[in-house]
Amino acid sequence: MMNGDQMIESQAKNLLSEKEMELINAYWRAANYLSVGQIYLLDNPLLKKALKPEHVKPRLLGHWGTTPGLNFIYVHLNRIIKARDLDMIYIAGPGHGGPALVSNVWLEGTYSEYYPDVSFDEQGMKRLFRQFSFPGGIPSHVAPETPGSIHEGGELGYALSHAYGAVFDNPDLVAACVVGDGEAETGPLATAWHSNKFLNPKRDGAVLPILHLNGYKIANPTVLARISHEELENLMIGYGYKPYFVEGSDPEAMHQKMVATLDSCFDEIRDIQYRARIDGDVERPRWPMIVLRSPKGWTGPKEVDGKKTEDNWRSHQVPFSNVRENPEHLMLLESWMKSYKPEELFTEEGALKAELQELVPEGKRRMGDNPHANGGLLLQKLRMPDFQEYAIDVPKPGSVIAEAPRPMARFLRDIMKRNASAANFRVFGPDETASNRLSALFEETERVWMGEIIPEDDHLSPDGKVMEILSEHTCQGWLEGYLLTGRHGFFSCYEAFIHIIDSMFNQHAKWLKVTNDEIPWRRPIASLNYFLTSHVWRQDHNGFSHQDPGFIDHVVNKKADVIRIYLPPDANTLLSVTDHCLRSRNYINVIVAGKQPAYQWLDMDAAVKHCTSGIGIWEWASNDTDDGDPDVVMACAGDVPTLETLAAVDILRRQIPDLKIRVVNVVDLMTLQPEEEHPHGLKDRHFDDIFTTDKPIIFAYHGYPWLIHRLTYRRTNHKNLHVRGYKEEGTTTTPFDMVVMNDLDRFHLVADVVDRVPRLRQRAAYVKQYVRDRLIDHKEYICKHGQDMPEIQDWKWEW
Amino acid sequence: MMNGDQMIESQAKNLLSEKEMELINAYWRAANYLSVGQIYLLDNPLLKKALKPEHVKPRLLGHWGTTPGLNFIYVHLNRIIKARDLDMIYIAGPGHGGPALVSNVWLEGTYSEYYPDVSFDEQGMKRLFRQFSFPGGIPSHVAPETPGSIHEGGELGYALSHAYGAVFDNPDLVAACVVGDGEAETGPLATAWHSNKFLNPKRDGAVLPILHLNGYKIANPTVLARISHEELENLMIGYGYKPYFVEGSDPEAMHQKMVATLDSCFDEIRDIQYRARIDGDVERPRWPMIVLRSPKGWTGPKEVDGKKTEDNWRSHQVPFSNVRENPEHLMLLESWMKSYKPEELFTEEGALKAELQELVPEGKRRMGDNPHANGGLLLQKLRMPDFQEYAIDVPKPGSVIAEAPRPMARFLRDIMKRNASAANFRVFGPDETASNRLSALFEETERVWMGEIIPEDDHLSPDGKVMEILSEHTCQGWLEGYLLTGRHGFFSCYEAFIHIIDSMFNQHAKWLKVTNDEIPWRRPIASLNYFLTSHVWRQDHNGFSHQDPGFIDHVVNKKADVIRIYLPPDANTLLSVTDHCLRSRNYINVIVAGKQPAYQWLDMDAAVKHCTSGIGIWEWASNDTDDGDPDVVMACAGDVPTLETLAAVDILRRQIPDLKIRVVNVVDLMTLQPEEEHPHGLKDRHFDDIFTTDKPIIFAYHGYPWLIHRLTYRRTNHKNLHVRGYKEEGTTTTPFDMVVMNDLDRFHLVADVVDRVPRLRQRAAYVKQYVRDRLIDHKEYICKHGQDMPEIQDWKWEW
Repeated sequence: MMNGDQMIESQAKNLLSEKEMELINAYWRAANYLSVGQIYLLDNPLLKKALKPEHVKPRLLGHWGTTPGLNFIYVHLNRIIKARDLDMIYIAGPGHGGPALVSNVWLEGTYSEYYPDVSFDEQGMKRLFRQFSFPGGIPSHVAPETPGSIHEGGELGYALSHAYGAVFDNPDLVAACVVGDGEAETGPLATAWHSNKFLNPKRDGAVLPILHLNGYKIANPTVLARISHEELENLMIGYGYKPYFVEGSDPEAMHQKMVATLDSCFDEIRDIQYRARIDGDVERPRWPMIVLRSPKGWTGPKEVDGKKTEDNWRSHQVPFSNVRENPEHLMLLESWMKSYKPEELFTEEGALKAELQELVPEGKRRMGDNPHANGGLLLQKLRMPDFQEYAIDVPKPGSVIAEAPRPMARFLRDIMKRNASAANFRVFGPDETASNRLSALFEETERVWMGEIIPEDDHLSPDGKVMEILSEHTCQGWLEGYLLTGRHGFFSCYEAFIHIIDSMFNQHAKWLKVTNDEIPWRRPIASLNYFLTSHVWRQDHNGFSHQDPGFIDHVVNKKADVIRIYLPPDANTLLSVTDHCLRSRNYINVIVAGKQPAYQWLDMDAAVKHCTSGIGIWEWASNDTDDGDPDVVMACAGDVPTLETLAAVDILRRQIPDLKIRVVNVVDLMTLQPEEEHPHGLKDRHFDDIFTTDKPIIFAYHGYPWLIHRLTYRRTNHKNLHVRGYKEEGTTTTPFDMVVMNDLDRFHLVADVVDRVPRLRQRAAYVKQYVRDRLIDHKEYICKHGQDMPEIQDWKWEW
Repeated sequence: MMNGDQMIESQAKNLLSEKEMELINAYWRAANYLSVGQIYLLDNPLLKKALKPEHVKPRLLGHWGTTPGLNFIYVHLNRIIKARDLDMIYIAGPGHGGPALVSNVWLEGTYSEYYPDVSFDEQGMKRLFRQFSFPGGIPSHVAPETPGSIHEGGELGYALSHAYGAVFDNPDLVAACVVGDGEAETGPLATAWHSNKFLNPKRDGAVLPILHLNGYKIANPTVLARISHEELENLMIGYGYKPYFVEGSDPEAMHQKMVATLDSCFDEIRDIQYRARIDGDVERPRWPMIVLRSPKGWTGPKEVDGKKTEDNWRSHQVPFSNVRENPEHLMLLESWMKSYKPEELFTEEGALKAELQELVPEGKRRMGDNPHANGGLLLQKLRMPDFQEYAIDVPKPGSVIAEAPRPMARFLRDIMKRNASAANFRVFGPDETASNRLSALFEETERVWMGEIIPEDDHLSPDGKVMEILSEHTCQGWLEGYLLTGRHGFFSCYEAFIHIIDSMFNQHAKWLKVTNDEIPWRRPIASLNYFLTSHVWRQDHNGFSHQDPGFIDHVVNKKADVIRIYLPPDANTLLSVTDHCLRSRNYINVIVAGKQPAYQWLDMDAAVKHCTSGIGIWEWASNDTDDGDPDVVMACAGDVPTLETLAAVDILRRQIPDLKIRVVNVVDLMTLQPEEEHPHGLKDRHFDDIFTTDKPIIFAYHGYPWLIHRLTYRRTNHKNLHVRGYKEEGTTTTPFDMVVMNDLDRFHLVADVVDRVPRLRQRAAYVKQYVRDRLIDHKEYICKHGQDMPEIQDWKWEW
């Protein structure tokens, strides 16, 4: 039997002429030379002088192992881009091979256009070398600083999901995605292969995965490099691909194989797209992918100090150090660099020789200058209907019960509709769109599904714009890829399980921070919007394992200028917040709101006003309005805490009519921080006006209580702040019992007030007996009936 | 061609006699009956009376869809356990099918042994039904409360890694692991299939994965249920398994197929183990696995209200509600439950009929009573050498430079050695054991590797005890499985990327919390020990993407009685802390320490004393010892902050000799919390003795500064606390520049002191000019030389 590999080999004979071969190999040598130079050299970039210790960096940092393979791929992609006028971006999963991407972007001239100081000559080459992994310079991995990149080489695992995200709704784009064999062991990468079940060749572009087997991770072989050829082939077929193998170490043979393979792959991609777009074929195709097996540290020193180095884990980072001190190492470095014959590659002035420049694609076809990799350039505003048209009618606070996400879902549906022709908006989630009450979306679009569809299926279609896979990692990766290439998105998720992507959030937040601070040429992109629902307080049948509101805490540790957190208390505020988030740029917005039927508080006018301020006194619930001198401030953030606070106020106003209460609701959590720490932070004077400078504050908060202390720590009245929130007590129980277990319920809040208002001391015993009795009633009732007391479920509001 | 499925089918003819078939099917009906009862009924458990609305729960919660499949598997595993006297545990990936496991554990009698109130009779059955998803009862998913479980049905994705973790070093154990097809889409599960490359059939037990395709998630079909048979077969072969398919819906045919398939699988497992153990065959075998394709909600109502329900996503949770209010639904429920013919299954008194009890394995062979699933029962103390023997000699603070993990690694090596025969200790990490300076382990053991091994490989062996895969998820899952079955482990990881398992940490912490609080029969297990290194302050070549110390914050949100956090400042304290952690039970211990060469401060005696207190005044660095009345307290937690604090003290003592400084170091972060909040919290009086009640405190902390405020918030002197830490500023730069970027360096600390000690006001201008000059020197030097100034790298300590 002839496998794909052998077939290609037989076809590959003499595909490149001798001259073409020579040129392509020279270009590769140039990229390798520049890569080694970045890792090692401070000066003498063209080795015009004999190499001396002072030309070498004192600290040697970087990853050589993967770099020549990345260079090899880059030059071959350049060839096919030119040959077929392709619109392509390069995603480098082994992103710590930063020197490769930087070298290539410099060789194609893009780097000097973005960074004129790093010019396309000897002086620029010297800067290019020096800045790499050098204070004030550039990171050693692919980073936001790298033109042409949408994928940071930090944490591993997200290359493929980023690639797919980039090509959704970009029919002419190809994302060539190099997957490192280390990265391939991560969970997120292992499942991202299945993204091909969600890519529609008719309207989406193509991903060409290139699994780069160079055999070793830091110190270990990789799993995929040490399974049999047959198993690996089966695995890729099982993932739904048609694998091509390019394996070897002889450059000439490898160039020929790579040319033939890429030609075959792009023939197939063209055929697949033709069948889908012209013939209307809707079957999921078997997309090509490449397994490139090449030596780790290819073309590097075979041996260092008598130990095997090329094709070994010793090549992973810097293959040898101590170059300044060890003359043998210095000689080894010089001979290694000279083995690339720089004099054949660069002009006397340090530019790439003209015949090699011929290999570079034109203008925006250069992968370093592809506008898709600087998505803000392509970003179009969403066409948005007026969110106020989706308002729920709330004649009086607490008079209406509704599921907050439903009006928002209708708003999203119409955004989807208005932007259908722009094809730049998608909604993502791990199979929870319907569960999260967003089904209105299905009036306009469907769930994307390229697999078999049977009649009982619910809103599946190859043309859908709702992306659902039971992998938060994949949803996040797709969305990031979609946003970074200049589109818009919305991610809904169970609150507890968004922690699954904590680390991905970190990486994206760091990307945005660096972009904001340091990279003016990266144009702002649409914000990443999370809608977290099925939250901690309503896990009636899922229980303790689904109860965790800590994502907010995780987010707050990141830079204030990239994060925003909203806790809309009802449907109309949720609409207003959603509108705001979808219009924003370069943020990560976190919106937390429940999906269960709940009381509605604000009509649309009040909601807009409230959300514009982000925080406000709810006068209709307060009774300190005569003289503005309350006995207590009852603050709340989050829908369930708002309900409990208002019910506590209701009790107090009935039981102690002369108690003056001010009710404060917080939608935009960051208003609590000082203005120096967050752009949304209230001025101290304004904060003091709201919270007083000396009255007790009982703050009912959605999440872990400490966060409120953290945010308000520098505020005048912080000493009188008492916060209730989730204290990690929970199980499968009734909604009201959950708040009782965490002392966040109306009765505990009443007791908190009575404890803290000095003039109530005499009445405290009476009120607290009332509270105890109610809590006993509650426990008895739920243990008997398994549900909350009717009077709790249907509270009779007295205003 | 005859596929595996057809071969089994042909062999399967008449494998069960008619009588056997009847019995096994009756047992399955019993389990299904009890499962429906748990979801729906409050009373009338045996349906002796006509079903009335008041017999039905008012809140219907639970997941029916996966349950009959889980029951089907359970009864068949019982058969083969009995037939072959197997030692087996059941891991239910689709753990929200809790009713299945609870039903089966009750049927085998175990449940009533663990919970005598839920007796093996009608009264007990009533309790069994009522308690399910009921306040004060049990969660709706498999949970710590479920006998026989080591795997909570909360977050999805970890079933397979738990199963492998359970069987490592348990040669006679089989973990039957049901993988839901929803769960199979998660990243962690997708890569956990590769665990077979790390399982040695000679010394480890076996995992039998059963991929349960029931077609739907919440509302969507599943990816694996909608790819072709061929692709799925390829995928499983690619993962290294031999797949067997059991597909259909007719119970009789399915019983026969399942019997034949399980017989084949266990024949193969026996053969594999025989070859490895008797013949000495060391090749990685191709382990069997089963694809079970059965209808979602199998045996449930075909239709509800005219809509397809069996074999549909509508069966996912409760297939129909409104039973109390809707008489048709009430009738439907009654006829559904009666379709199982309870009168044939249970005695008049409500026990399982004697002939069906015959199908239950004996005693500890019952999966609900298998001691491996209550690992604390089997836990043996580690045999530990005296950690003090590994001490580094530190004649004087700051006189020795060492890499802190190396002595700890020698300690771990000898623990490995002493417990080799017990085979109950393993070390886990994502390919970072050597990078994290733990190579001493390789003097005693190797990395586990069942793949091909070539001569240049570094310490690979099928017999290794160091588990490395580039998947933090898999490492964590293996370790949890290993610990929950009563063994010990140690997980080393880059600090930033431990966030990858934030959510897994949550689930394990919640498991421990529930176990501690509510489940006395679950015996304490060894703690989960994290060693986090390559930390935020030393990412010289990785940069900003690798800088995140926030895992500590994440951990602190969990219950105080299960979490411990240690920041040993040097090698000897790290040894002492490690010893303590490895002896502890039912905690999650987080140890954070750098791996780079660093000054050593404490000799072993001082280290032991310091770690025993967890916090202490370092008198040798302080100069307030005469009268114990300092001008300032300089506190630190973490190795780099300790270095910077001591250097700042050094500067201050030289520049302002009359300034009285007290140096406090914190190893055990939880000592800072009040004693009411954490068992390690200092008494207030003790805290005040250390930190004074009125002097400025400059606290240099490893992580995000806010945490120190949070922990000390209620302390007397909190108002004078000023914390420096990581503020999300970083890049690829020198070690010292990293602290400068975050204002944590010695010079900023000096300025902080001068700013806060009132009597220094007159000298402030002079000192601050000195600080500014030094910082300018530093920036100039690193921009020119690319490394830190020699005087910073080699500080001359003046004590």
